[in-house]
Formats: sequence, structure tokens, C-alpha cells
Amino acid sequence: MSRSILQMEKEFVNYTKKITAYNEALALIYWDLRTGAPRQGTGQRAEVIGILSSEVYDLSVSEAMAAYIANLSSLEAQNIIAETTKTLIEECKKEYDYKRKIPAEEYKEYTILLSQAETVWEEAREKSDFALFKPYLEKIVTMTKRFITYWGSEGNKYNTLLDLYEPGMTTHVLDRVFSDLRASIVPLVQKIAAADNKPKTDFLFQTFPKTSQRAFSIEVLKQMGYNFEAGRLDETVHPFATGINRGDVRITTRYDESDFRMAVFGTIHEGGHALYEQNIREDLTGTPLCSGASMGIHESQSLFYENFVARDLSFWKKNYELLKQFTSGHFDHVPVEKFYRAINESKPSLIRIEADELTYPLHVMIRYEIEKGLFNDEIKVEDLPSVWNDKYEEYLGVRPSNDKEGVLQDVHWAGGSFGYFPSYALGLMYAAQFKQAMLVSLPNYAQLLEEGNLQPIKEWLTTRIHQFGKLKKPLQILQDATGEGLNAEYLIEYLTEKYSGIYQL
Amino acid sequence: MSRSILQMEKEFVNYTKKITAYNEALALIYWDLRTGAPRQGTGQRAEVIGILSSEVYDLSVSEAMAAYIANLSSLEAQNIIAETTKTLIEECKKEYDYKRKIPAEEYKEYTILLSQAETVWEEAREKSDFALFKPYLEKIVTMTKRFITYWGSEGNKYNTLLDLYEPGMTTHVLDRVFSDLRASIVPLVQKIAAADNKPKTDFLFQTFPKTSQRAFSIEVLKQMGYNFEAGRLDETVHPFATGINRGDVRITTRYDESDFRMAVFGTIHEGGHALYEQNIREDLTGTPLCSGASMGIHESQSLFYENFVARDLSFWKKNYELLKQFTSGHFDHVPVEKFYRAINESKPSLIRIEADELTYPLHVMIRYEIEKGLFNDEIKVEDLPSVWNDKYEEYLGVRPSNDKEGVLQDVHWAGGSFGYFPSYALGLMYAAQFKQAMLVSLPNYAQLLEEGNLQPIKEWLTTRIHQFGKLKKPLQILQDATGEGLNAEYLIEYLTEKYSGIYQL
Repeated sequence: MSRSILQMEKEFVNYTKKITAYNEALALIYWDLRTGAPRQGTGQRAEVIGILSSEVYDLSVSEAMAAYIANLSSLEAQNIIAETTKTLIEECKKEYDYKRKIPAEEYKEYTILLSQAETVWEEAREKSDFALFKPYLEKIVTMTKRFITYWGSEGNKYNTLLDLYEPGMTTHVLDRVFSDLRASIVPLVQKIAAADNKPKTDFLFQTFPKTSQRAFSIEVLKQMGYNFEAGRLDETVHPFATGINRGDVRITTRYDESDFRMAVFGTIHEGGHALYEQNIREDLTGTPLCSGASMGIHESQSLFYENFVARDLSFWKKNYELLKQFTSGHFDHVPVEKFYRAINESKPSLIRIEADELTYPLHVMIRYEIEKGLFNDEIKVEDLPSVWNDKYEEYLGVRPSNDKEGVLQDVHWAGGSFGYFPSYALGLMYAAQFKQAMLVSLPNYAQLLEEGNLQPIKEWLTTRIHQFGKLKKPLQILQDATGEGLNAEYLIEYLTEKYSGIYQL
Repeated sequence: MSRSILQMEKEFVNYTKKITAYNEALALIYWDLRTGAPRQGTGQRAEVIGILSSEVYDLSVSEAMAAYIANLSSLEAQNIIAETTKTLIEECKKEYDYKRKIPAEEYKEYTILLSQAETVWEEAREKSDFALFKPYLEKIVTMTKRFITYWGSEGNKYNTLLDLYEPGMTTHVLDRVFSDLRASIVPLVQKIAAADNKPKTDFLFQTFPKTSQRAFSIEVLKQMGYNFEAGRLDETVHPFATGINRGDVRITTRYDESDFRMAVFGTIHEGGHALYEQNIREDLTGTPLCSGASMGIHESQSLFYENFVARDLSFWKKNYELLKQFTSGHFDHVPVEKFYRAINESKPSLIRIEADELTYPLHVMIRYEIEKGLFNDEIKVEDLPSVWNDKYEEYLGVRPSNDKEGVLQDVHWAGGSFGYFPSYALGLMYAAQFKQAMLVSLPNYAQLLEEGNLQPIKEWLTTRIHQFGKLKKPLQILQDATGEGLNAEYLIEYLTEKYSGIYQL
């Protein structure tokens, strides 16, 4: 019997590798579509995506999958199979339940709805007209509510959605940490608004050719330890990182010749995501576990490099001279401290993706509160524009003058991605906690940045986070790496200290 | 009953679209591997290729496929289904028989053998040591002979192999045309060797930056009518064209900064292949018929543009000034006629892929005779190096001094591609026949080239060749487009006239 279980274990792992193979082909297709696939081929390519995706769907909800899950979850099997297989079973079961609990007809209807909604959302945003998008959003919310009843929920209904992106996360935890954050950040933002000593930033916006920005970005990626033999850097409208497999983790970026921050900080951010995927344990290659633990943990890695490395003064003590080499004397008369203050300018704004690290969590909280309200029947879709605008005024002191710069700015809801936004703020909090824990092992952290020696930092992150892929749950990773659970204090402390310094509060 | 046949026809077409979808994903993966996929990801990508390929294999030899073929081949079905479906059935049946007639175990053994053989061939070529490669080649030949008995043959056994690449082609036809060609080309080559008036070529080899070569190549591609909204031009070691789908037909090229001919004529050659795939009838999209009719017809399109367009004096009367714009005065003192003679220099050489259009067919004939001899037990693998060298001496007057520049130069045999080589010479003959027929419709052919108006040429080729994809067999295409069967005279006449002029014979 145990021999047949081991045989089945092997078959099951191979079965999941087939799913991964289709997903790898899909990942390459998506990368290609975004980086330069010829326009006229995209219609037929959509057919290919459809066929491969439905193959993935079929494999993950098949009778064969059901049998693997049932048989390898038995007590006898659990005593024999490898630890990684157990986690693999859990992952597959989660996916199986997620898809199987929704009636096939409804799932299909939902998929069609989303593809229509995204097109309508684009038009609505263009016209800044929420009314156009409203019926679609209402339908998406209604269907998602029904899905929650299929999936079941513990405590708050919204927990079910949070769990899709951040396994184990609850409103109970988020309410606490967001409340802590809000209590500290809102007054800090207000103090900054009133501060006399605002950084000058005009010198940042001199013409900086694309090729030079690219060359500098590549140098920084190398410093971070991004492996160019297992990746490449391309150009897109919307930057992203994609782990096609762990030996092929690609980054894209966008160049603005009059604002180098877009490409440089963008590349470093995506580079942080990419380091995660490049450094997952080799034995997970080709399995569905060879990916990040959660959206929040993934974001913690990109934000760690973007904020705790690349927005740190020590980093620029090393790299400012290098940056200057790629410009035509732009910063020759700008001291590094002045440059540092400029790239850390903070001011309330309306658009999340353009926000600085201090105000960013407030953008996320607004979305969190709205989503929680929607799924607990406390907010109606029709009221979203006014609720949105009121919250912006309350938390950030700015009020959108139209839907485009307000409630229509993000694509997430058109894609049915409720529960995703909190990951961005979780990423910031996780990153601050990791940084604090890292200082115990690497008390010379600042000096390492000044020397451009980022290797020990990458190693710390790889040992405690990257290598595990999906083998550990996000809160387990946090606990093991830092010795405690989610705690907003580290982020608060970091932001307070940093911005008090920059604005001389 | 007829309703259920029509239902089955629809299902069958969709079934083949699934096969095409996997092949499209594979085509993109191969393109990506050759144009810049990160090295460390290729191991896992090979797994993906394996999984997708075996899916294609399974679908094309499945019970479902057998049922489609049987049911839709019935007399009743044939009276009802569309003409394109009939051809689709034929194609699928051919593929089915090809694969199913070989026992699965042997096919697997063969696949493994080929992958080993290619690696060994690379090493053998590097070391110029045929002995290393010999046992693998012997095994490949032995297995292929056995496959021929499985597949069956009509007339010469080698016909079965020819048919894989050029449906309907036989040794009977090839013996005739190659004999005609040889009788004319060998003496012409000898006359040229003895001619006093050889073209000067030294001015061709001045430094020509990659970016300028690329810019010029793009201009020429546009002139040809290559659609950049349905394609793109990239760089690779070994240039190729790939029809990922008919709206996504990509070209690659190689740049040699001290010999622009490599990139320019290479791009035009691949551009000819690409025009074919871009102009197949839209309703064939996504089916296995959306591809070239045969290797020979495909090659006729690339060679048409490379030789009959881009090596024609009239073409350069238009484009020489354009070329000059991309150089730093390289050709300012070189008249266009002198340039034309230089790019048409002909001399016997050892390496096929570097050969000029006049001597090229001799390289192909040598391989044809050897392959025919091998599969009719007239030549032994162990004798290949000496047979090869003797034939080169006989036909081209040059003798390889080692295996690397002799029998080991081509990868084809390591890949089991016997019967493929004749396509290259067929392409030349087809192209010459198409050119002659085109002159009837377009008597102002030379003038069109001089005006850079290649649109009517593309339209002629699209109407008679491109649009049909695999709907017609190669010899049918030839017959319909030119009114006659394969005839070497047109190529002979073209070469004789052209080279007599260039060498003032």
C-alpha cells in the first residue's frame, strides 16, 4: 500500500508539473503580448490563451485531481509523503475548492462579465463617468457575494476575499494595524503639509536619455544581485516582473526622459519582486509551489528594495556618483543630501500609483474600508464616488474633482480583484519588520549600502523568505523571520523618523 | 445523419485548432529561446516543450482523431463537408499515419537518438571527426529505413522521404531536372572560373554599423510589403522566419559589420518566407492548413525575393541610393553596375550556406545523390566522407580538406531530416518558373523594381501561391501558376543569361 502511495505521490507531482508547464507557456505569451507582439496576431493569440487556460482549469478541477487530493490527504498517506507534497496538496485543494465550489455556468458567466467590465471600465475612466461602469461593478459585486457563500467564510465575509491574496489574513488583524497606521500617518502628513522646510525638486526633471537611464538601472540591478543569466530587462507601458520559471524571471520598466525616477525606482521595485522568484529553492522548480507565498510578501520584497534600499541616504552615498556618470552634469552642484530629500518628497495626492511611501498606506486603507463596507452591505456601489471622495478628503486632505482621478483610477475592481489592495500596505509593514530584524544580523546595514555591498542583504532575504516559495504561509514567514506577528509599529517608527528628518519637523 | 456529420465536422475543425494552439505556443517558445531567453531558464523550458509537444502528439494520434478521419472520409461525409475540411482531413490523416505506423516504443527511441545525435554532431563537427558521428548516423539511417517499410513506398524507397517535405515529389522527377541542371551549370561554373573579367568586391567589406544595416533592411522589407503590424525583426545567430500565426510572422537576421550582405540578403530571404505566411487566406487562421504548402514552395518565395528581386540590377537602380544614405560614403565612387556585379560574384566553395545562387544547386545535388544512395543501399555511411569529397571535386572542382568543411557541415542528418535538401534546389527552380510566368502578367517587371513598386509582385504571388496555404499540393500550385510541371530550363536560362552577362562570357 505504501508503495502505491509513493507511486501516486510521484504521479501527482508530475500532474502538477503539467499545470505549471501550461502556466509557463501562458506567462511567456503574456510577457510577449506586453513587450512587443505584433498587433495583428493578438486575436488568434487570445484563442491560444483561451485553450491553454481552459486546459489549466480542467486539470485543476479534474476527477484525477480530486482523487489525488482525497487519497494523498488520508492519514496513512500523510505519514509517508514528503513535506513539500503535503503543501502541494493543500495548494491544489485550495485551487480545486475555489473553482469547483462555483457552478461551472456561473464561473463562465463571471469570466465573460470580467472581460466586458474591463473594456467598459477603460471607457468609463476615459470619460470620467462612473455611471457607465456602475452596472458592471454591481454585477461583479453581486456575483462575488454569491461566491463567498459558496466558498464559506469565517468571521467577516471579507476575510474570504483577503484569504485569496494573503492566506490567513483577516479584517480583525487589518483593522488593528490600519488603525495604528492611520493614527500616526494622518497627523504626520498634516505636519508635513504645514512644514516650512520643503525639499526642492526642480533639478530632478532635467532630460535624462532613455539609454542612460537603462544603463544606470542595469548597474543597480547587478548591485542588488539580480541575475541577468536568469532574467532580462525590457520596456513596457505598465512595468511588471514575471517569473516564467525560476531561471527566467523578467523585468520590464517604463522610461520618462524628463523624470528618471519612474524608470529607476520602478526597475528597483520590480527587481525586488524578481529576486524573490530567482531565489526560490531549486527543488520546487516546475511545481506550483515555485512562486511567492502571497501578494503581501511579494510586495514586501519589491518595497524593501525600493524604499529601504533605494530611498535610503546610504544607498545614494554609493550610487550618486554613478548616477552622475550617466547624466550630462545634471547634479554636479547638488549635494547628495539635497538629492536624497528631493527623491523623498511627500505630499498628498489623488492617484495611488503616483503616491510616495508615506501617503501610500492611506490610499490603500481607503480601498480596504470601501471593500469591507461593500461586502458587509454597509456601502452601496452607487454611493462609491461620494464615499471615495469623502475619504480622500478626510485622510489626505485632497478631494478628487472627477471620477477619473477618483473611484475609476484602479483596474482591480473591473477584474474582480477584491481583497487585493491590502497587500500593498501589508508589503510596507512586512518590509519594515524585516528591516528591523535584519539589523540584528546586519548591524552594519547602512555601511553595506554605502559600500554597494548588497549581497548580505539578498542572502538574509533569501534564507528567510525567498527560498521557501509557497512552502510557508505569509504570517509564518513573518513570524520565523522576525519573531513576531504583524505589527504596524515598525513602519510607523521608520516613517516618523525618516520624514521628521527630511522635513525637519 | 447529415446533421450529425456537419456537427462532427465542426468538432473536428475545433479539435485541430487545439493542436494549432499548442503549436503556436511552441513556436513562440522557440522564437523566444533563439532571440534572448535567459540561459538559466532553458532547462525548465525544455520540460514545457516536452509537455506541449507530447500533447500535440497525443492529439494527432488519438482515438478521437482516428474516429474523425474514419467518419469524415466516408463517401457520405465527403459529399457534405467543406472542401477545406477535406484537405484538413487529408493533412491529419497523413500526420496520423506518419506517427501511428511507427510503434510508440520505436518512435520514442528515435526521438532520444536524435537529441543525442545532434549533440554528438556538434562535437564531431567541432573536432572535424566523422568517426565520432558515424555510429549515430548509422543508427538514424537504419531506423529511417525501417520507418520506410512501415510507411510503405511507391517506386524508389527514397520517394517516401521526399514526400515528407515535398508532397508528390519523386526521384523520377528529380533525376530528370537535376540531370538537366548539372549538364548546364557545371560547364558554366567552369567557364566562370576561367573568365578574365571577374568582378571586384573589395569595396563591399567596409564597416557598416549594425543600426544602419537594420534601418536599411527595414526600408526594403516595407518595400516588399512585409507588414510590421503582423511581424517584427529581431537578431539571432541563425536567421529564420516563423509564422507564429498569420498575424504574427517574425523574422530574425544576423549582422556582420564588415559584410552587410549577410543581413541585407538574409533579411530579404526571410522576408520572402514571411510574406508567404502573412498572406494566407484569413479563414484558414488557427487550422493546420495555415502554413506553407511545402518546403520547396516556401523556399521558392524566399529565393524569389532574394535572387529575382534583390540580386537584380533594376532593384539596385532604385535602392542603391537608399543604401548609400545609410553608409558613410562607402559606395560614392562605385557605379551601380559595378556594385551589382560584386554582389553577384560566383565561385565554387565548400560550404553550402555560403554558396552563391549559381553553384548552390550543385551543393544540393550532391546531398540528393548521397541520400538516394543511402536509402537504396548503394552507399554506406562509413563511405560518406570520401563519397562527399569526390562529388565536390567532380561537380565544383574543390575538395574539402577535412570533415568539418565536408560531410559534417549540415545539421540535417543529425536531425533525421533526409529528403529535405532537394527543397532548396526545387525552390530555385520553382522561383524561376514563377518569374517567367509573372512576366506574362507583369511585362514591366524590371520597371516595377526600378520604381520600388513591389506591390504588384506581391499580389501576383499572393493570388497564385500565398493565399492557399496548404490547400493545394506543391505541384498543383506550380501547374496552376505557370501552366506546366517542374522544368529546370527556366532556372538554367536565367542563370546562363545572368552570369554570361556578369562574367562577359
